[in-house]
Amino acid sequence: MKKDLGVKPFLFPMPVLMIATYNEDGTVDVMNMAWGGICDHDKVALNLEESHKTVANLKARRAFTLSVADVAHVEQADYFGLVSGNNVKDKFERSGLHAVKSKRVDAPIIEEFPLTLECEVNEIQPDGFRVVGRIVNVQADTSVLNAKGMVEVTLLQALVFDQFQGGYYKIGDKVGQAWKSGKPLAK
Amino acid sequence: MKKDLGVKPFLFPMPVLMIATYNEDGTVDVMNMAWGGICDHDKVALNLEESHKTVANLKARRAFTLSVADVAHVEQADYFGLVSGNNVKDKFERSGLHAVKSKRVDAPIIEEFPLTLECEVNEIQPDGFRVVGRIVNVQADTSVLNAKGMVEVTLLQALVFDQFQGGYYKIGDKVGQAWKSGKPLAK
Repeated sequence: MKKDLGVKPFLFPMPVLMIATYNEDGTVDVMNMAWGGICDHDKVALNLEESHKTVANLKARRAFTLSVADVAHVEQADYFGLVSGNNVKDKFERSGLHAVKSKRVDAPIIEEFPLTLECEVNEIQPDGFRVVGRIVNVQADTSVLNAKGMVEVTLLQALVFDQFQGGYYKIGDKVGQAWKSGKPLAK
Repeated sequence: MKKDLGVKPFLFPMPVLMIATYNEDGTVDVMNMAWGGICDHDKVALNLEESHKTVANLKARRAFTLSVADVAHVEQADYFGLVSGNNVKDKFERSGLHAVKSKRVDAPIIEEFPLTLECEVNEIQPDGFRVVGRIVNVQADTSVLNAKGMVEVTLLQALVFDQFQGGYYKIGDKVGQAWKSGKPLAK
């Protein structure tokens, strides 16, 4: 039986993405975003309300990094969503995490997160709500790579966000393989 | 240690979303999409190459439904990504799944998927690559709702896509709570 839930932003899974930018004084800002992700082979879309410190930083520096938050840093990832860089000047410092400047774009890489996309701002819509970034490079911690140098989901231990009830989850077992699981029906 | 992986569309988690539309003859088409999702409180974005049958259907009917594929239907979900509606006329029929017409939009609801967004097309970019849909209603199977009528992730059993290696995964344990896990750092 089906039940109507009304107009809700309800999909699953949602990511736990960390947008890192530089403030005007060169300090680091990080925010937590679920509404965005891959939108092309070399692009990501961020959907952000204009009031975020991140939007001002994106306009000024035209660059950001986008990292996948992992289970080991759930406290920091959630904190980056709880507190605004507009109100807390030492927001990043208080997290206890560390940043280095990207060699490719004018944005910080948070060392503790296992996977980071280095991005240039490609387009900012007039209302600031949608920002498209061009991926210049993906950087992974070697601890999440398998023997072939590819990212292994079970090593990545990325957080998964539950938009229905605000839960953070880890990933479970593998249940299939793309372009293979459906082959019996494609005959 | 960090390793550069180059320009890749690498984020995690990625969704396994089923876009359902009507063909010109009233038969059902379903495609599998990972590059898209929530982009506003009442909107979803689909990033699609123009060659898909879905894009022609979206332009003609200005409506679609977007469903979350679950573990029980991994074979069908993958099949919808393997085969094109441009080539296989009875694509949906072969899946063995069932559809009913949405009461709200001119698009089919696939009965077997546990969570479905009924959407009107709000905007199609000129190249057809980005389609924005307005969510008119969310419909959930009562089997995935808890006693309070809210979607429960552990009941939903949604598929999670691994863009790195093409794996399908199920969700694991809960590891935190948004706006709570980070509170110790926000003090």
